[in-house]
Amino acid sequence: MSEIVYLNGSLIPRSQAQISALDYGFLYGYGLFETMRAYEGQVFRLDNHLRRLADSAEVLGLPIGTLDLKKAIMDTIQANQLSDARIRVAISLGEGETVPDPSTCKKPTVLILAGDYQPYPEEVYQKGFRVVVSSIHRNSGSPLSRLKSANYLDSLLARKEARTAGANEAICLNEKGFLAEASMSNIFLVTNGILRTPGQESGILPGITRETILELAPPLGINSLEDNIRLDELSQAQEAFLTNSLIEVMPLIEMDGKPVGSGTPGPLTQKLLTAYRELVRTGE
Amino acid sequence: MSEIVYLNGSLIPRSQAQISALDYGFLYGYGLFETMRAYEGQVFRLDNHLRRLADSAEVLGLPIGTLDLKKAIMDTIQANQLSDARIRVAISLGEGETVPDPSTCKKPTVLILAGDYQPYPEEVYQKGFRVVVSSIHRNSGSPLSRLKSANYLDSLLARKEARTAGANEAICLNEKGFLAEASMSNIFLVTNGILRTPGQESGILPGITRETILELAPPLGINSLEDNIRLDELSQAQEAFLTNSLIEVMPLIEMDGKPVGSGTPGPLTQKLLTAYRELVRTGE
Repeated sequence: MSEIVYLNGSLIPRSQAQISALDYGFLYGYGLFETMRAYEGQVFRLDNHLRRLADSAEVLGLPIGTLDLKKAIMDTIQANQLSDARIRVAISLGEGETVPDPSTCKKPTVLILAGDYQPYPEEVYQKGFRVVVSSIHRNSGSPLSRLKSANYLDSLLARKEARTAGANEAICLNEKGFLAEASMSNIFLVTNGILRTPGQESGILPGITRETILELAPPLGINSLEDNIRLDELSQAQEAFLTNSLIEVMPLIEMDGKPVGSGTPGPLTQKLLTAYRELVRTGE
Repeated sequence: MSEIVYLNGSLIPRSQAQISALDYGFLYGYGLFETMRAYEGQVFRLDNHLRRLADSAEVLGLPIGTLDLKKAIMDTIQANQLSDARIRVAISLGEGETVPDPSTCKKPTVLILAGDYQPYPEEVYQKGFRVVVSSIHRNSGSPLSRLKSANYLDSLLARKEARTAGANEAICLNEKGFLAEASMSNIFLVTNGILRTPGQESGILPGITRETILELAPPLGINSLEDNIRLDELSQAQEAFLTNSLIEVMPLIEMDGKPVGSGTPGPLTQKLLTAYRELVRTGE
């Protein structure tokens, strides 16, 4: 079956999904996206993703208020007969005039892609991810650092550095030298039994999975802290992990070739992964 | 006559210019552009623009080596019967798989837009531009700060700040607090008779017009320096100006409501504008 995508109200084969070459998403990266995961056809924390998208759209002046994205997402999942899926919603300002002027864009472009998601096998979770420190810095001095915008090239370039080094992910510092996030995931670490993650002022995209982990920690008796974190605090951490909607909670066991913590997945990481999956199983 | 655009080898009406919604330019801002100005049908410093584009394409791994962009640009200008024109070349990595993987993009997307350019009237040059200092910082810690990439949203947001404040342009500092550039132009200023502009390490797009000004200065007996420049050095400058291919050399006479220099276009600015226009008139 050929893949079906949602584009501006229609469900169409992917090969027919065309947009104007004068879309401001294409010309200027004037757009936003969300990546979500569906389990047995249900998107986990869909409302949270849509709320973040709406908040970000307001920051950028993207008029998406009247769109029924929830229905569009469910329709796309069903059209592709998906159960475990990865979903990407991309919204841009739409087509405008050739002279850069966002006020000439009359209607946003809405694209929804949904495909089968094959999770990493359990062995990968038992082994954990190896990371490198990227040469690319996050810019906490731009509002875009806090939005999942179509200005995503820094992340792709950082991930390329990881691939080139034979690692799974690349960690980016902010311009002050503090930890920000990995190319496609948020970072957590444990110091003296406390769960720590870079705060919003660190130049991060505050992920929905990150938010979920910060909710799950207290009931499990884990104290957590959003913080300015130095790179050496990560190398000396008791344990560490990465989060996003797709990888959930992935142990981080090595940085630039040196073990983080014991060099194996830590006990709080395991506990939070188990709790996260339990939450997924029982619904939100 | 309806506007003709060049898209992937064809000259077509703008309304028919469609690209795949899975273009990595649209999904991730994986692309580059150049803005140029043509005078009487001839693009000023076309070779310099194309060289920069080729250099940037190499950084991003965009395979544009075999494209005859020069011919494509001239064809687009002629198809639209233009004399004084603004030209924008946009090149993206092209269509790829839904799971982010640049290696799945097989062919770049090449778009050329050309439209009539109405220069600012002389009164504007005699009066000069007023600027505000943007809340958005440039990130010298990313390679993108030195490329004209499709990750251009920071610039549009900075320009919006200028518009909201009733100013012509917005000036961005880098993360260290030094001057970087304006939202769509480079900055020059004069201190103790020396022409100064932020250096490449300041997180700037080193513009072709900027490069031309740095070439023109010495024969005119003007010493120049690429430098780390503090904001207060701009407010205390003897004179200042902004450059890009379209505005050429535009006096900067006011910042955040306070005069820069005498609050009128300065003598070196006038001299360089005259020399630039003379160069344009005589060709490269």
